[in-house]
Parts: sequence; structure tokens; C-alpha cells
Amino acid sequence: MTKNRPLILVVNDDGIQSNGIAILSSLMREIGEVFVVAPDINRSGLSHAMTLNTDIYIENIHQEKNEFICSGTPVDCVKLAINKILPRIPDLCVSGINHGSNHSINGLYSGTLHAAMEATIQGVSSISFSHLSYSDKIDFKPFKSIIKKMAISILNNSLPTGITLNVNFPDVHFNQIKGVKICRQARGCWKEEFKLVKTNQLKSYYSISGDFKSDTKDMESDSWALENHFISIVPASIDYSSFLVDELNYLAYEF
Amino acid sequence: MTKNRPLILVVNDDGIQSNGIAILSSLMREIGEVFVVAPDINRSGLSHAMTLNTDIYIENIHQEKNEFICSGTPVDCVKLAINKILPRIPDLCVSGINHGSNHSINGLYSGTLHAAMEATIQGVSSISFSHLSYSDKIDFKPFKSIIKKMAISILNNSLPTGITLNVNFPDVHFNQIKGVKICRQARGCWKEEFKLVKTNQLKSYYSISGDFKSDTKDMESDSWALENHFISIVPASIDYSSFLVDELNYLAYEF
Repeated sequence: MTKNRPLILVVNDDGIQSNGIAILSSLMREIGEVFVVAPDINRSGLSHAMTLNTDIYIENIHQEKNEFICSGTPVDCVKLAINKILPRIPDLCVSGINHGSNHSINGLYSGTLHAAMEATIQGVSSISFSHLSYSDKIDFKPFKSIIKKMAISILNNSLPTGITLNVNFPDVHFNQIKGVKICRQARGCWKEEFKLVKTNQLKSYYSISGDFKSDTKDMESDSWALENHFISIVPASIDYSSFLVDELNYLAYEF
Repeated sequence: MTKNRPLILVVNDDGIQSNGIAILSSLMREIGEVFVVAPDINRSGLSHAMTLNTDIYIENIHQEKNEFICSGTPVDCVKLAINKILPRIPDLCVSGINHGSNHSINGLYSGTLHAAMEATIQGVSSISFSHLSYSDKIDFKPFKSIIKKMAISILNNSLPTGITLNVNFPDVHFNQIKGVKICRQARGCWKEEFKLVKTNQLKSYYSISGDFKSDTKDMESDSWALENHFISIVPASIDYSSFLVDELNYLAYEF
């Protein structure tokens, strides 16, 4: 390994076979030494889940390229990468490119964002990339120069402690994109549908699907930015505590 | 159902068989109409994971008591409860009592806290309760009056939009507890160990264990409060965005 090249960990939640991680890892190889550690299958929607009661495996599937698959969650991939696979703490972790949106509250469910956040917990500057299209066939190439520029910028500047960048690309032709905007997480909610698939004795089986309703009124929000053809960056914090201490003081007391 | 009694959803991540949820649901029955929807087995460490590609079942295991088990994640339990089981949006959701700590960054991994946060996303005032002891035999009875008082207080006052209460009880004799303190999330990290369990062809199987190292220096933090025998309450936000916009402005630009 060349001493002066940055060490970069590439992860995702869509699994090793996805186009997003292929593009992202080939792009990172242009700027550093790359290790890829990804789920063996699609493990979307797993948030910050980790595996506690089952053994998980890692397998080096492409030795020259340092590509590993893992049977655990996206967060497990990062933990194992840093503790068991990489020769040292990486200089950068990039996650994605996710096939589908992780803006607004979707980030809470996202394995892509939370894999990056796990790297942040471990002290590694980290960026999560997602594209609003869920299509497998989406052409990520036009975004390559922006991703590369952002990665180099973070390698040179590093990020504030405890902050992960949550980057989302709008689902419009690249020529229509207006710029890159730092945002806050929009409000929004899923209008979910639970389809009764079958009943078996006393058990009722459901499948979940739904539509996301985002609130695009707040011009500081990622939903507004994306709706208006900007690439959104939300600085996501591993500290979820709010500063509403005064409002809740009625709950505090000493014995 | 009596019209004036509040409707309360009780969930957890340790599963239906845990002592924590038994105590919590019997306590809630003293103040309202209760529905219990819990994982059929222990599903700790699943954070805000939801099930996307598998059907999940619910089963009413105790009709008089409105007790349901679910094969999904803690977050799935809340989604199904609100969409398919409860007669209306509940007035309160309580999660736990978790057997084990969810203070500091542990909350990020916690299914107990994130089940409560899912209820918050759905507009329901919500509290997550955890006890720092991992023992199944822990005596939760001394905490009953505090939990009941807190639940009634939230039913009467409701919570600020997007805020879940993350409550942790210290692992000391109840007589030693000094009070209840509103805190921010402490820093901390896991010193993890990955034990190689077996190798099978090219796969290496690991089990995860570790020790938590919390930073108890910050007197505003939950770790300090718990170390000093206070019950900690962290107002946890479903908005993970940080307000460091100026610091990151170098990343923004318009085309």
C-alpha cells in the first residue's frame, strides 16, 4: 500500500451486487487505497441495527480489489471492516450510492446513512450518498465528478466531530441540477399500506408498502432542495439529543 | 372501551416474554386502556430497522388483555399496532422496560428507544424506559411510581413535536437514587471484540461482544447523571440534522 494515498472504506446497504457501490468504489480507487465491505445481499431499511445473537461471516471475494462480503447488517460491515479487515483506521468512509431516497425522515430507516454514521462513531470522516431514483439502471456517471470533489474536500478538511454527511441526488437530468445545498432534515411521513397476504391459524401475515409524503415548504430543508433540483447535504449528528431542557424541566426533581 | 380512559400502546425489543414489558403493561393498565404489541422473540439491537422484503405476522395471544406478538422488528410492531391493531391513534406509547442500558450512544442501536421514536414520527407522545442492569431478575417494582407519574404527566402535557423521552434507570438500590435529571446524550464508544468462531471454506465467522466506555465527565450528560445515581431523561429528536451550516458552507455551490 502506497504510504501517502488515503485509505478509504466503501460500504452500502443495497449489497455487493448493486450498481451504486460499483461506481462508488471505482471512483474512490482514483483517489486512494480502497477496501469494500458490503452485505452479501440487499439489506435495505436496517437503520443502525447490529447483529447480537448470531455469528456473522466475512468473505474476501476479490483479493486484488480488497472486496469483502458480510452476512451482517450495514453497521456490522463497518464494525468488522475497522476491527478485522482494514490495516488501520481509514481516512474516509463512503456509503452508497443508495438506489433510493434517504432525505427527510427516511434517513432514520437507512442502512446506507447509518453505516456511514457507525464510521463517524469510530472517529472516521464519513459520507452517505443516495439517489432519489429506486431504479437499478440509473446512470450515476454524471455525478462522478461531484462525488470525487466532495470526497477529496472531506479528506482535506475532515468533518466536525460526530457529524456524517447525508447527501441526496435529485431524480432529474444532470443538466437540470442547480447546485449543492447544505440543509436540515425535512419533516415528512410515510402513508403506509399493510396488505394482508395470508392467515394461518391465528397468525395474520402482512407485507408493507407505502408512499412517502414529504413537506417541501421549508426552504432550508432537504426536501425543498431536492424538489428544486439541488443536491442536498444534511449534516447528520450521532447525538440525537435535543436542547429543549427548559420545556421539560417539570419532569425533573431531586429526592 | 371506556371513552375517557387514555389509549396506551406498550412495546419493547426484548420480546413478549420479558419481565420489563410485563411490569410496564400492568402499570399502564392502572391508568388507561392498554394494547401490547411486542416481538415474538428477543429482537434487541435492531435500532430503527423495518422489514421490507419479508411478510410479517401478528397474532393475538391474549384477547382479554389485547396482547399481540409480531414477527417483525420493534419499529414494525409500532407500525402494525397503529395501522392494523389499535382502534384509534393512541394517546401515549411506552417502550420497555429494557433490560440493559440505552444511554449515551447506545440509544442509536436500541430497538426500545426506536420503537418509541417510530410512535413519535406517527404523532404519538412516547417514552422509552431502560434499566442499566442486563439481568432478567432485576426488581423493577421500586420504579413503578416514578414510571406511572411520568406517564400521567406526559398524558396531561404531551411532548414537543418530534421529541421522544429516553429514560434510563441507574443500576443501584432504589434508596440510593437522588432524583430525575434532564440530560443530553453523553459521548462514549464500544470497545468491541470480534471472536473468530469458525472458518468454513473462504468464510470466517465472528461473534460480537464488547465493553462500553462512557464519558462521564460532562455534568449535563446522561452518563454523568446515571453514574451519580440520578434517573436520566434525554429528549431524543427524530430530526438528526445538526446546525453546523456555516462550518460546512465550503461544500455548497450553485452551477
